[in-house]
Amino acid sequence: MRIKLIIAYDGTDYCGWQVQNNGKSIQRAVQDAIEDLYGHEVMLTGASRTDSGVHALHQVAVFDTDKDIGIRKLPMALNVRLPEDIRIRGAEIVAGDFHPRYCDTVKTYEYRILNTDFPDPTKRLYSTFVHPKLSRESMRRALKYIEGRHDFICFCASGSNVEGSTERTITKAELLEDGDMITIRISGDGFLHNMVRIIAGTVIKIGLNAWPPEYIKAIIDSKDRRNAGPTAPAEGLTLTDIIYL
Amino acid sequence: MRIKLIIAYDGTDYCGWQVQNNGKSIQRAVQDAIEDLYGHEVMLTGASRTDSGVHALHQVAVFDTDKDIGIRKLPMALNVRLPEDIRIRGAEIVAGDFHPRYCDTVKTYEYRILNTDFPDPTKRLYSTFVHPKLSRESMRRALKYIEGRHDFICFCASGSNVEGSTERTITKAELLEDGDMITIRISGDGFLHNMVRIIAGTVIKIGLNAWPPEYIKAIIDSKDRRNAGPTAPAEGLTLTDIIYL
Repeated sequence: MRIKLIIAYDGTDYCGWQVQNNGKSIQRAVQDAIEDLYGHEVMLTGASRTDSGVHALHQVAVFDTDKDIGIRKLPMALNVRLPEDIRIRGAEIVAGDFHPRYCDTVKTYEYRILNTDFPDPTKRLYSTFVHPKLSRESMRRALKYIEGRHDFICFCASGSNVEGSTERTITKAELLEDGDMITIRISGDGFLHNMVRIIAGTVIKIGLNAWPPEYIKAIIDSKDRRNAGPTAPAEGLTLTDIIYL
Repeated sequence: MRIKLIIAYDGTDYCGWQVQNNGKSIQRAVQDAIEDLYGHEVMLTGASRTDSGVHALHQVAVFDTDKDIGIRKLPMALNVRLPEDIRIRGAEIVAGDFHPRYCDTVKTYEYRILNTDFPDPTKRLYSTFVHPKLSRESMRRALKYIEGRHDFICFCASGSNVEGSTERTITKAELLEDGDMITIRISGDGFLHNMVRIIAGTVIKIGLNAWPPEYIKAIIDSKDRRNAGPTAPAEGLTLTDIIYL
C-alpha cells in the first residue's frame, strides 16, 4: 500500500528535504516518525527536493507499507512524533504506481521580499530584506516575460546535473503586495535547480532599476546563467502548492 | 549624556527583556553590544519588561555615557555587534532626566491568533494556533468592553507585585483580520503583568462561544483574576509601539 503525505515545514533548521551527510533533513525527520509508528524501515520519496533553509506549506511525499494503520488518524499519529517545525497536513492511500515526481503537476513557489527601512527580526526567517525602495511596476513587467514555455537554463544553478530538457512552462508569474512585504508567486509544470531564487534575484535587480524589465527576455534568449542576477537567499522561498493533473 | 534606543527583537530564544539568572535576556545582549562599542559598563533601562518569548517591534531603552560616538551611526555600529534577532531601529540623545517608564505614554501591543485548520509551522513563532473557527464578531464586541478607564486587576497575573493603582486607560482595543490571521490590537497608558495575554485568552474563549461578549464586563467588575480566561501563550504577543506624550 502506497501512502501519500502532504507536509508543511519551516526549513530554517534543516539542510533541506533530502537526506545528506551534513545536518538533519526533513526527509530523515519524517522517515524517523513513520518508522517509529510503523515499526519498519521506509523510503520516503518527495515531489520537490527543497534546499537548505527553504520552507514548504505543501510538499508531497510517498512511502510504502503493508501495515494498515487508520489513514484518518495518520497525520495526528505522525505529528505527535515530529518536531513543531514539521507538520503533516494530510494523508491518503494512492495507487501503487503513483510517483510524486514523475506526474504532470502544477507547482507553485512564493518568494517573499521585505522592502522597508529596517530588517524586522520577526520576519527574517521567512523573507529576504531589501532596503532601497523597489519598483513594483518594473518587477511586474519583468515577471510577464517569464510566463510561457521557455528554455530556462539561464535560471538554473551552474553545475546542476539536469536530466533531459531545460524547457519548462510557467503558467503564472505574478507580484503580490501586502504593505512592505512583496511576494513573487510563480506556478509552472517544473522548476530547474534554484530557478525561483535566481528569478527572484534577477527581478530584485530590475526592481532596483539596475536593469530594465525587458532585459529579462534577453537573459532567457542568451541561455547563459552568467547574464542573470544572483541567487536570492533561501529563507525567502516557500513551496506553497503542488497540484496533480 | 543619555541615549535613547528604539529596539526590535524576535523574543523566541530569550528569557525576556530583563536580565535573569536563567537564560539570555534582550537587555543583556544589547548591553553587551553597547559595552563592546563604548568600552565601559552601562545600565540599560527599558520601557517595557517583555516576558520570555514575547516579541517587540518598538521597545524603548536608555543608557548613559560620557563618550560621544556619532548618534547617526550608532544603530549600525550596534547592529553589527548584535545577533540577527535583535535590531536597533534608531537612536537619539535625550534629556538627562528622561526615563522610559516614568513618562506619559501610549503603548500598543498586538496579539496574533492563527485560526485555521492546521498549525502552519512558518507562523508558529509569532502567533498562537486555534483550530475551531472563532467568532470574530463576538471577539470585537468583547473588546469594546475593554476600552476606557477600568481597574484591570482581573487581567493581572496572580502573584504580581503591583506598585500603586491597578487602574489603566485603554484607548483602543480592536480586532484586525488578514485571512486566517486574527490580530487583537490594544493601546493604552499602561499594562499590568500579563494583561494583554490574559485579555487575549479571555477573548479567545468568547470567540469559541464559551462565554458571551458581555461577560467580559462582569469579569472586569468582579476584580478577580479567577473569573478571566487563561493566559494566552507568549509567542502571540508583540510590543508594536510606544508613543511618548
